[in-house]
Amino acid sequence: MSATEQWHELAQQLRVDSIRSTTTAGSGHPSSSMSAADLMAVLLYDYLRYDFQQPKAASNDHLIFSKGHAAPLLYAVYKAAGAISDDEMLTLRKFGSRIEGHPVPVLPYVDVATGSLGQGLPISVGIALAGKYLDKLPYHVWTVLGDSEMAEGSNWEAMELGGFYKLSNLIGILDMNRLGQRGQTMLGWNGDEYAARARSFGWHAIEIDGHDLDQINNAYAEAIAQTEQPTLIIARTEKGHGFAEIANKENWHGKALPADMAERAIKELGGERHIIVNVQKPEAGTPATHGERRAVELPRYDKGQTAATRSAYGDALKALGAALPDVVGLDGEVSNSTYAEYFAKAYPERYFEQYIAEQQLVASAVGMQVRGYKPFASTFAAFFARAYDFIRMAAISRANIKLRGSHAGVSIGEDGPSEMALEDLAMMRAVFGSTVLYPSDANQAAQLVALMADQPGIVYLRTTREKTPVIYDSSEKFTIGGSRVTRESSEDQVTVVGAGITLHEALKAYDQLQAEGVTIRVIDAYSVKPIDGATLRAAAQATNGRIVVVEDHWIEGGLGDAVLEAFCGADGVAPQGQPPRVVKLAVRDMPGSGKPDELMEAAGINARHIVAAVKSFLR
Amino acid sequence: MSATEQWHELAQQLRVDSIRSTTTAGSGHPSSSMSAADLMAVLLYDYLRYDFQQPKAASNDHLIFSKGHAAPLLYAVYKAAGAISDDEMLTLRKFGSRIEGHPVPVLPYVDVATGSLGQGLPISVGIALAGKYLDKLPYHVWTVLGDSEMAEGSNWEAMELGGFYKLSNLIGILDMNRLGQRGQTMLGWNGDEYAARARSFGWHAIEIDGHDLDQINNAYAEAIAQTEQPTLIIARTEKGHGFAEIANKENWHGKALPADMAERAIKELGGERHIIVNVQKPEAGTPATHGERRAVELPRYDKGQTAATRSAYGDALKALGAALPDVVGLDGEVSNSTYAEYFAKAYPERYFEQYIAEQQLVASAVGMQVRGYKPFASTFAAFFARAYDFIRMAAISRANIKLRGSHAGVSIGEDGPSEMALEDLAMMRAVFGSTVLYPSDANQAAQLVALMADQPGIVYLRTTREKTPVIYDSSEKFTIGGSRVTRESSEDQVTVVGAGITLHEALKAYDQLQAEGVTIRVIDAYSVKPIDGATLRAAAQATNGRIVVVEDHWIEGGLGDAVLEAFCGADGVAPQGQPPRVVKLAVRDMPGSGKPDELMEAAGINARHIVAAVKSFLR
Repeated sequence: MSATEQWHELAQQLRVDSIRSTTTAGSGHPSSSMSAADLMAVLLYDYLRYDFQQPKAASNDHLIFSKGHAAPLLYAVYKAAGAISDDEMLTLRKFGSRIEGHPVPVLPYVDVATGSLGQGLPISVGIALAGKYLDKLPYHVWTVLGDSEMAEGSNWEAMELGGFYKLSNLIGILDMNRLGQRGQTMLGWNGDEYAARARSFGWHAIEIDGHDLDQINNAYAEAIAQTEQPTLIIARTEKGHGFAEIANKENWHGKALPADMAERAIKELGGERHIIVNVQKPEAGTPATHGERRAVELPRYDKGQTAATRSAYGDALKALGAALPDVVGLDGEVSNSTYAEYFAKAYPERYFEQYIAEQQLVASAVGMQVRGYKPFASTFAAFFARAYDFIRMAAISRANIKLRGSHAGVSIGEDGPSEMALEDLAMMRAVFGSTVLYPSDANQAAQLVALMADQPGIVYLRTTREKTPVIYDSSEKFTIGGSRVTRESSEDQVTVVGAGITLHEALKAYDQLQAEGVTIRVIDAYSVKPIDGATLRAAAQATNGRIVVVEDHWIEGGLGDAVLEAFCGADGVAPQGQPPRVVKLAVRDMPGSGKPDELMEAAGINARHIVAAVKSFLR
Repeated sequence: MSATEQWHELAQQLRVDSIRSTTTAGSGHPSSSMSAADLMAVLLYDYLRYDFQQPKAASNDHLIFSKGHAAPLLYAVYKAAGAISDDEMLTLRKFGSRIEGHPVPVLPYVDVATGSLGQGLPISVGIALAGKYLDKLPYHVWTVLGDSEMAEGSNWEAMELGGFYKLSNLIGILDMNRLGQRGQTMLGWNGDEYAARARSFGWHAIEIDGHDLDQINNAYAEAIAQTEQPTLIIARTEKGHGFAEIANKENWHGKALPADMAERAIKELGGERHIIVNVQKPEAGTPATHGERRAVELPRYDKGQTAATRSAYGDALKALGAALPDVVGLDGEVSNSTYAEYFAKAYPERYFEQYIAEQQLVASAVGMQVRGYKPFASTFAAFFARAYDFIRMAAISRANIKLRGSHAGVSIGEDGPSEMALEDLAMMRAVFGSTVLYPSDANQAAQLVALMADQPGIVYLRTTREKTPVIYDSSEKFTIGGSRVTRESSEDQVTVVGAGITLHEALKAYDQLQAEGVTIRVIDAYSVKPIDGATLRAAAQATNGRIVVVEDHWIEGGLGDAVLEAFCGADGVAPQGQPPRVVKLAVRDMPGSGKPDELMEAAGINARHIVAAVKSFLR
């Protein structure tokens, strides 16, 4: 058989398998799989370098299906590579199967979850950045894109950063099948426009007929020959190609073929095949190293001085950089406010400026962790809202990333509400397996930054803009899931729970109440998720079931709700004992500009309001 | 004075005033204001058509500062237009002032809040869509962009939709001052690249020296002469232009000048001026109308049939379209899943496809409501996470928009977690002034859609993919802030609260428990925010302080937390009475693919788990 015949046979197999698995499942996306089958056949035979026996081998290429709904094609590729069996492929979309409706990394060949469109290319940029600048290995990142998803702004963040960083190891394969879910895409088959856009963003662009196997072959050869630019291959294809009844027809998005149609389709495609391709393995290689691992020496702050937790982050990240060669810094063009610049200046080879592109910022972190790095990504806490879908999906990717939001709450002052994160705790708590930290002083912040490095999942650290007193000795230890009882006596009448800037207001309230003969317990709930339920329950019991929670955040979803959580029944079983009466002090009206003190007073979250809330229990 | 001299004098005044206000405030962004002063001077004298006495006049142009941090310049423009006094301008960033650190619509000349970058242009697209296709009025939208923010993918969503819809009434003014917050932007002064990108996205592009007043004048004349394309004017400028000590220098982003420097700067700029420009008023005009307002006739569903609340949304929106000429439909290329297509087909002139660009989807809604329309924007509930920053900012804009998320929770089934909204309730509750609705049957869904039309603020409706039984008669009335006690007796031992699909599980649990001699109260909490606290408190009291809450959502921030909220002290005062013991049943492990029933069982949120949770109270 000629190469062209081989490619064709495999392409037909990929189509047939995409139909077989989706018809068996009764749902899924055969038509979107069929359009890209030729592209994958040539790739698998002649370009992909991947050891399917060792999916984590350092030199393997990466194959990312940004159009995650074409998962049936991806699984057909894995079958053709001998990585999964035909039987397992046919468990598509079944409960308990690894062969999910959209790719997830429970399969070891899948790097990241896709299925929310416009994520695969930004994450690929992260992997390619690691490949070119950190690993310094010759692997390529092959990213299969749908044309509909080119409408996502996130893809243009990837295009601009890919061009800016000259990621010649990144090859986008645009399956331009013209048809979106409910009709034609914005550009249809206008490949010239995609090409013009790609070129204007610094990419090499190649337009081909995506069903012409020789053109595909030539395009891949041209792409891997690039040394200064990423490549976008714009492949004109037909949705449902190979089965005339549905090819290039509307209303066949996301529909499995009924059994009789599937039978006709498989016949038209030449029947079932079970070709196994001996995919070429990459040459062995070892990632470049970036220094020796050694013990972390955290910065220390003296009790009594004032320091902003945001600058403690900067100091601590730099300290991590000195000790941990796998720590990488990323920031969204605000490193002089987040103090990521300390790391950037000390370790420029491990710092990647992401400019004001927060989706790409998080996606690059996800890509970096695919390659085993520990990415710390920072921007203003408010602006992570821009990347929430990426954070949500990162959890589905079982990614280990560290996010740090500076400038939280009304206490940032004059800049006004656009720059105030008031929903970040709610947003980050509602992420699967997340950790949410909110330090109250600089020593604690530094320790928590160090703990973030080894904490799995999505780890979020919220910091405060303003300088606050250092209240803990640098030798004190803090843990994820812990808390600190900062004021405690056997006379405590009410428990006050704060974190970050509001802990300091709680301490002021303690002093004021003490002067009036009222004693309160004060808890620093620096670990918002997981929350220290045991300490909270003990405090509630010791203080007559009275709790005041105070936070610089909207009243919904933040520290207050985290505290209430501690008194609910775990695992669906009724809680023991009476839950406490709780007052939540939080931001409830739209703030404006002003001094931090003025805004905290207006929001009802300063010492005066805490004192009033405590007294309301004692009336 | 020649026109050029007039422009120059005004430009210098705008610079001086930007310095005066920020130096008085002690913070703010004079340098980013100074770069765009010449651009604004020519605009104000000769191009802007705006009646500052009637800021809501239908024919007024719109001036949007996407680079919201240049607010001092915007306020200086308002002063020069006679709209605000010099004294008020100098209250910049003071507590209680309308002259906030970033523009907010507490000033009537400000259409929308900006300050989170990359939002002004997408919102301008929404306004321009309304102008060209709905109002059919000749006003222009002038949008001042920073060059740093061109890194935001959202701006490229705006570029593509602006080009696609041929928004010749939209003029972007790119203040290419080269310097971002912490150094040079990705493209620096490479205006050719910006121009190439703009052209590839279907825009007319003009490159000018942004300090050459005649070039500015010519560019504006050329821009307003366009009839088929939006225009991007790429103006090469200097940050801090006009004051040599800081002009085009790094480290002057976001810094007010100290008093002595301010004095030197004002001297160099020729001193204070108090020119008032007689801004040209637009010709009077009336927006086109789209039919007569009449009574809404909602769809009706028969009790006992099954219907998906997602299709009830489609039916109801179409009914609204027939009755309310100001209702507009928007969707993110999934209208055949969200059933927005019913509206789209019936009222194509009021429907605007936004393709897979969710940030633009929400931004277009914000722009539409600036023009007085009632936009209903729909996509999969999960994908609103992509637009969270836009939703957050829409609240600061005091915008009235209606968002509808379909396909919520694990009950969507086989598609898997990427398509399952499990954080949308948390996200939407934590938005200032938001309303969050989650109907349990089709008649209720239809009524809630009708109520959304007149509900101010950010209103979110969550719907279910699967068909569920119709349990309410079409004549029953529901209210925002209400709930429905669907099972109730004097023997009730435990209260079960559900919403959407879980209400049906609660009703099944009722039947099972009833058969075992256990009676429960079942509450349909279709209004998640505001939650019906009174009904919940009464139920808790009637059922021995025992509540089970069950939801198809992560355990954080959703219905469970909304229910707990009802037992906390309002307004910072200790709650009366003992709060109930609460079991929250919610999703706590990462789901995969499977049948809805399998996934709800695995998540622990079906009738079987509700029965077990109820019994755990009775042991």
